[in-house]
Amino acid sequence: MFKAKVTVTLKKSILDPQGSTVERALKSMGYPVESVRIGKYMEVVLAEEDKNKAEGLMHEICSKLLSNPVIEDYSFELEG
Amino acid sequence: MFKAKVTVTLKKSILDPQGSTVERALKSMGYPVESVRIGKYMEVVLAEEDKNKAEGLMHEICSKLLSNPVIEDYSFELEG
Repeated sequence: MFKAKVTVTLKKSILDPQGSTVERALKSMGYPVESVRIGKYMEVVLAEEDKNKAEGLMHEICSKLLSNPVIEDYSFELEG
Repeated sequence: MFKAKVTVTLKKSILDPQGSTVERALKSMGYPVESVRIGKYMEVVLAEEDKNKAEGLMHEICSKLLSNPVIEDYSFELEG
């Protein structure tokens, strides 16, 4: 059993209006913020005992379902 | 300058219908998934040179703005 902690972020070249809004809000409150980018976070528990297989499955799941490879990058860490 | 990688997750006792939907979808596609929980991920770049101050600022920002402490937990890592 492995727990994968997945983060999905917009590629650098893609505008992030949600992040810009949070950035402006924080700046207007006086926080010394340079930039904010917003992404997604997911925890997936896999019923798989082999770490290599779990890694392969996660790459498949992330690229097919949890992220849009045209505009997003994903990364994950396996724990377990 | 520090980059904080923030994850905000629903507390364990809070239902996560979005996660359940993804879980069902993955199961129906034959993936050996046990559970899925969905959260938020944010990267905040702070113009602050002192690590302790940056940490204090991030705790303030996370608890006041980036998460709802009633239903969510946050954690962050500072890089920089």
